[in-house]
Amino acid sequence: MKTAITPTRSENFSEWYQSLIVASDLAENSPVRGCMTIKPYGWAIWELMREEMDRRIKAAGVQNANFPLLIPIEFFNKEAEHVAGFAKECAVVTHHRLKMIDGQLQPDPDSKLTEPYIIRPTSETIIGDAMSRWVQSHRDLPLKLNQWVNVMRWEMRPRMFLRTSEFNWQEGHNVFATHKEANEDARKMHKIYGEYMREVLAIESIMGEKTEEERFAGADKTYTVEQIMQDGKALQAGTSHDLGQHFAKSFNIKFLGTSGKLETAWTTSWGTSTRMMGSLLMVHSDDDGLILPPMVAPHQIVIIPIVRDDDTLVMNNFSQEIGEKLRAKGIRVLVDTSDMRSADKIWKWIKRGVPLRIEIGAREMLNNNLTITRRDIGRDSKQTISVDELLNSASDLLNTIQKDMLSVVQERNKILITDVADLNKLDKYLTDGKIGFFRVNYEQTLDKKFDDLMEKHKISRRCLDDKDPSYVFVAKSY
Amino acid sequence: MKTAITPTRSENFSEWYQSLIVASDLAENSPVRGCMTIKPYGWAIWELMREEMDRRIKAAGVQNANFPLLIPIEFFNKEAEHVAGFAKECAVVTHHRLKMIDGQLQPDPDSKLTEPYIIRPTSETIIGDAMSRWVQSHRDLPLKLNQWVNVMRWEMRPRMFLRTSEFNWQEGHNVFATHKEANEDARKMHKIYGEYMREVLAIESIMGEKTEEERFAGADKTYTVEQIMQDGKALQAGTSHDLGQHFAKSFNIKFLGTSGKLETAWTTSWGTSTRMMGSLLMVHSDDDGLILPPMVAPHQIVIIPIVRDDDTLVMNNFSQEIGEKLRAKGIRVLVDTSDMRSADKIWKWIKRGVPLRIEIGAREMLNNNLTITRRDIGRDSKQTISVDELLNSASDLLNTIQKDMLSVVQERNKILITDVADLNKLDKYLTDGKIGFFRVNYEQTLDKKFDDLMEKHKISRRCLDDKDPSYVFVAKSY
Repeated sequence: MKTAITPTRSENFSEWYQSLIVASDLAENSPVRGCMTIKPYGWAIWELMREEMDRRIKAAGVQNANFPLLIPIEFFNKEAEHVAGFAKECAVVTHHRLKMIDGQLQPDPDSKLTEPYIIRPTSETIIGDAMSRWVQSHRDLPLKLNQWVNVMRWEMRPRMFLRTSEFNWQEGHNVFATHKEANEDARKMHKIYGEYMREVLAIESIMGEKTEEERFAGADKTYTVEQIMQDGKALQAGTSHDLGQHFAKSFNIKFLGTSGKLETAWTTSWGTSTRMMGSLLMVHSDDDGLILPPMVAPHQIVIIPIVRDDDTLVMNNFSQEIGEKLRAKGIRVLVDTSDMRSADKIWKWIKRGVPLRIEIGAREMLNNNLTITRRDIGRDSKQTISVDELLNSASDLLNTIQKDMLSVVQERNKILITDVADLNKLDKYLTDGKIGFFRVNYEQTLDKKFDDLMEKHKISRRCLDDKDPSYVFVAKSY
Repeated sequence: MKTAITPTRSENFSEWYQSLIVASDLAENSPVRGCMTIKPYGWAIWELMREEMDRRIKAAGVQNANFPLLIPIEFFNKEAEHVAGFAKECAVVTHHRLKMIDGQLQPDPDSKLTEPYIIRPTSETIIGDAMSRWVQSHRDLPLKLNQWVNVMRWEMRPRMFLRTSEFNWQEGHNVFATHKEANEDARKMHKIYGEYMREVLAIESIMGEKTEEERFAGADKTYTVEQIMQDGKALQAGTSHDLGQHFAKSFNIKFLGTSGKLETAWTTSWGTSTRMMGSLLMVHSDDDGLILPPMVAPHQIVIIPIVRDDDTLVMNNFSQEIGEKLRAKGIRVLVDTSDMRSADKIWKWIKRGVPLRIEIGAREMLNNNLTITRRDIGRDSKQTISVDELLNSASDLLNTIQKDMLSVVQERNKILITDVADLNKLDKYLTDGKIGFFRVNYEQTLDKKFDDLMEKHKISRRCLDDKDPSYVFVAKSY
C-alpha cells in the first residue's frame, strides 16, 4: 500500500522522521550550521505546548523573568564542574563591531572584547548571580523563577527538534532555605513534567532518577522524564535537578535565616524544550504523517467541502457555518476553502495530523449530514452522521481521541520494556535486534563488561526504576 | 511633600526614570555590558502587552514562526545599504568552543569559524533567504510572518527599556505580489500599532511617515508611531517599513505570476519592542511611582486588609472572599496577606502602579464596606463604598480608569505640540527651554541652518504630519 511518507517507519525510521517533518511542513534546516527554522505550522504546535506548560509552571507558584542571552566567561570560570559538562561546545562572542575590510565585512579588530561572552547554553550561572542579590533574608525564600528563551550548544551532528545548536526551552531556577525543600521541589517539577506529557502530549513516560554517571554537571540528583519512541529508542524529554548548594556556594546565594545567622541557600533547576516536539513526532506519527493529540493541534478539526465546479459557493458557505458553530464550542476549526483539489486537501491534512477530518459532499449537505474520520484510527473510523450529531459530540470525540492516543502509547510501552536477568542476556537481546528499554540490575552495570556493551550496542543508562531503584533502564537513545 | 520616587520628574526626569524602575521592581542592569535583567513584575507586564499585540497581529492574518538567532556574515555582505544602517555595532560569534588554557577558559583557537556569525540585529536578511524558498507562485502570496525574539545591537550608552544591547521584540515580515499591496500592508500594520497604543497602553501617538533622512536602511517608506514623554521628548514606539523590492532583489524572492512570468516580490517589515515599556513608564508614571493602565496591569486590583494583631485571620479571609468574587468577573486581583506592615503594603502597590487599591479596616468589615483609591487620581478618589457596590462596579471602574488615562495623555499632547512659523522661532523656543514637539515646514528643515539647530538643541525630525505632509514634527528624543 502506498504511504504518504517514504520511507516508512519500518524501512528506515531515521529517514522517515526527516520526511515526516518536510511532509507536515513543521520546520527546515537553515543556512546557519546546526540551526533550524521552525515554520508556521510547527511553531503553532509549539505555542500550544508552551501555553499549557506555562500555565502549569505558574500554577506551581513560579514567576517568569528574563535574563541576558550572553554570559560573561568569568561566570564559567567560577564553575569548573559545570563547565566540564557544558562549556566545551559553545558559541563565543569575541567582537562587537563589523568593519568593511578589503570589500568584505569582517569583525573589526578594534572591537575585540577584553572578556569574551558565551551565548547561554543554560543559565544557572547568570541566574545564580542575580539570586545572590535578590535573596537576602529567609523572607525572600522560596524564590521561583522561569524563563522561556533560546539557548545554544554547538552541535556537530544536528537533527531537527532533537539536537540543534540553537533551541527554545523553558528553564526554571528555584531557591530554598533547606535541602529538603529543594529536593521536594525538584521532584515536584519532575512530577509536573510527567503529568504534562501524559495529559497534554498523550505520552506515558518512564519516570526516574538519573544514575550518578548520567547526572547533570553540578547536580546532587537529576530526575528525568524518559520516553520510548516507536523504534524503541529513548528520548529524554525533561529533567529536574536538585543542585544542592553547588551553585549557591559558587555564586554566593546567602540569606539571613530565622535564627539571625547567614546561611547558604539550596537551588534547583528544571527544563523542557522544543525537543518535546521530536518526541511528539516519533511517538504518535505513522507512515501517512503526523498524528496530533487534540490538545496541541492548531486545527483540531478540518472541514473539507467536496465541491464540484457549480456548487463551490454554497458548499463553502455550508461548511463555514458548521465551522462557526464548532468554534462557538471552543474548538479550533479550519474550513479549507482553498482552491486545491479535494483529494489533495484530504492528504494535506492527513499528513499534518489534524485529529478529526470532516468531509461534506453535495448529497450529504442536502441531507444535513457529513462524514467524519479520526486521524488516529484512519479509514476504519469513517462514518456519516448528522450535523446535529456532530455538534453535540465533537468535544467529547476530541477528548476520546486524546485519551485513546495515550492508551495506545501505554500499551506499546508495556511491550517495549523488557526485564533482563543479566548482562549476557542483555547482549543477546540487543544482538538479536530486540528494541526498547531493558530493565537491568544497576549493580551489574557498574561492571567493566557493561562499558563494553554500551560501546558495542550504543546503549546508555536512562534512569533508575522509581519502583525499585536497584534496577536501571537501559536503551539506545536520541 | 515627600514623594516615593526621588528625585521627582521636575527635578531630574532622567534620574527619576531610573529610580522609578528600581522602586517598582521592574528590571535591573545585568553584569553583561548594556544588557538588562527583566524582573518578574516587569516581565508580567510585558507578557500582557505581548499577548494583546500577538492577538492583533494574528487577527491581521499573520503567522508566527521562528528563525535562527545567528546570521551568516555573507547575508550582510549581500546588503550593503542595510549594513550601513545596522551592522556596525553587532555581536560577532567567531568561535564555537571553549578551552582551558593556562587555567582560564578561553575561546579554543582550533574552533575558529571560517565565516563568523552575527547575532541578529533584525532579521530581514535571514527571513528574506527563507522567503526565496517558500515563495514560488502567486498562490503562495501574500505570505505574512512574525517572530517574537531577542535581538542585539551593541549599545555604548544603554538605558533600561529604551536602549539595551539585547532587547525583546516582535518583527513582522510580509511578502506581496505588488507594490500597492505591500505599501497598504505597511500602512495597515502602522495603523494597528497606533490603535494598540491607544486602546491597550492608553497612549495617543503622533502617527506619520519618516522623512527621507530618517528612514530605515533599505526602506522605500517608513511609517512611525511617535510618542511624547512627560518631559516633552519623543520616543519611537513602533515602525512599519515598505521595503519595496530592496530585499526581494538581494535575496531573490521571485514568484510565477498569474501571467506565467517570473516576477520579483515586494516586502514589508514592522516591529515593536520592550521599548514600549519605556514609553509606558515615561508617559503615565508620577512622582510616587508607576501608574499602569488596567489592560496591562498584572494586578488590576490589590486588596489590603488593614489588620491589627488579633484579627489577622478573619480580615484576611474576608479579603480573600472579595478577591475570589472579583476574579470570577475576570479581574486580576492580588490579596496582599503578606506580613508587611499595612502602610508599607500600601506604598509598595502605589509604587508598582496597581490601578485600583482596596483597603479594608475592621470597622469597615463589620459594615460590609471597604475603601477604594484609584492610582491615577490618588487620594482625591478615595471613597468608602459597600462590598456589593464594588462588585457591581469594579469592571466598569477599571474601564473608566483605562479611558481617563488616555484622556490625560490626549490633553497633554495638545499642550506639548507647538506650531512654529520658521527656524528662528524654533531656535528661540528651544533656547527658552520650551519642551515638546514642534511642527515646522519640512522644506525649511532641508536648510543647512536646521542642521545647526539639530546639533545645538539635539533635536531631530520625528515624522511628517499625516494631515499635511509639508510639515514635519521636530523634537528631542530618546
